[in-house]
Amino acid sequence: MKAILTSVLASSLLVLAAPASAQFAKTEDAIKYRQSALFVLGQHFGRIGAMVNGRVPFDAKVAAENADIVAAMAQLPWAGFGPGTDKGAPTKAEPAIWTEPAKFKEASDKMVAETAKLAAAAKTGNLDTLKTAFGATAGSCKACHDAFRGK
Amino acid sequence: MKAILTSVLASSLLVLAAPASAQFAKTEDAIKYRQSALFVLGQHFGRIGAMVNGRVPFDAKVAAENADIVAAMAQLPWAGFGPGTDKGAPTKAEPAIWTEPAKFKEASDKMVAETAKLAAAAKTGNLDTLKTAFGATAGSCKACHDAFRGK
Repeated sequence: MKAILTSVLASSLLVLAAPASAQFAKTEDAIKYRQSALFVLGQHFGRIGAMVNGRVPFDAKVAAENADIVAAMAQLPWAGFGPGTDKGAPTKAEPAIWTEPAKFKEASDKMVAETAKLAAAAKTGNLDTLKTAFGATAGSCKACHDAFRGK
Repeated sequence: MKAILTSVLASSLLVLAAPASAQFAKTEDAIKYRQSALFVLGQHFGRIGAMVNGRVPFDAKVAAENADIVAAMAQLPWAGFGPGTDKGAPTKAEPAIWTEPAKFKEASDKMVAETAKLAAAAKTGNLDTLKTAFGATAGSCKACHDAFRGK
């Protein structure tokens, strides 16, 4: 399982290292790409949330599978925040993403790290362990949204 | 690498086996989910296409990493085509998806299978092998679009 994350992480780092112009034909594609990746991530994260919050019965296998998808998807959106993608399509991305890139990277790295912990926690099959990791991951989402996502 | 696909495939099959109502809070979420997953897939597939078509230099490692993401993403969209998701948000999905589900499943299964072959072909590092697999995958995309996607 770790190999999955490691492999996707390696992919992501390489993608991030390439110039944005080589990755997206149009600025709007970059914006749509990051929004799409985050939406898919959010849907799978929400399924874990439903279990953590008791809205649906806890199923350790389903939780682990969704957490793996969350951790894999978490690698992707960042390539879509390249220079010049602050506008060009409807976006809630705040200018701070581009004016304070180190802070944005720190916040996004934190989220990626928490999703990896979430995937590991989900594999324990222990609901309390999952709850703790879910809370930490949700906190990293919220911190980044608070700082870098507008209304 | 095979473990990645196998794992994601297992996740996907399980997700598909769950009732749609348990997966998406709203019909529009299901529609947005499948569109998002296919858009992310398309962006990574396009990067391979650019190499295959000579628009950017062939980089075997980049091709393989993108093909792995394509194969992983290919597992996801189908859960978003559940009963009742033929409308509820803008969608090009044709009614045939729901009136001829066996044919749609055959077409989507074909695409998933071709993306797995694409990932394997990309790992050979041979451009001609990649070209062949890319063409077959693109053909499976087109066949499904021709039959099940409107203008």
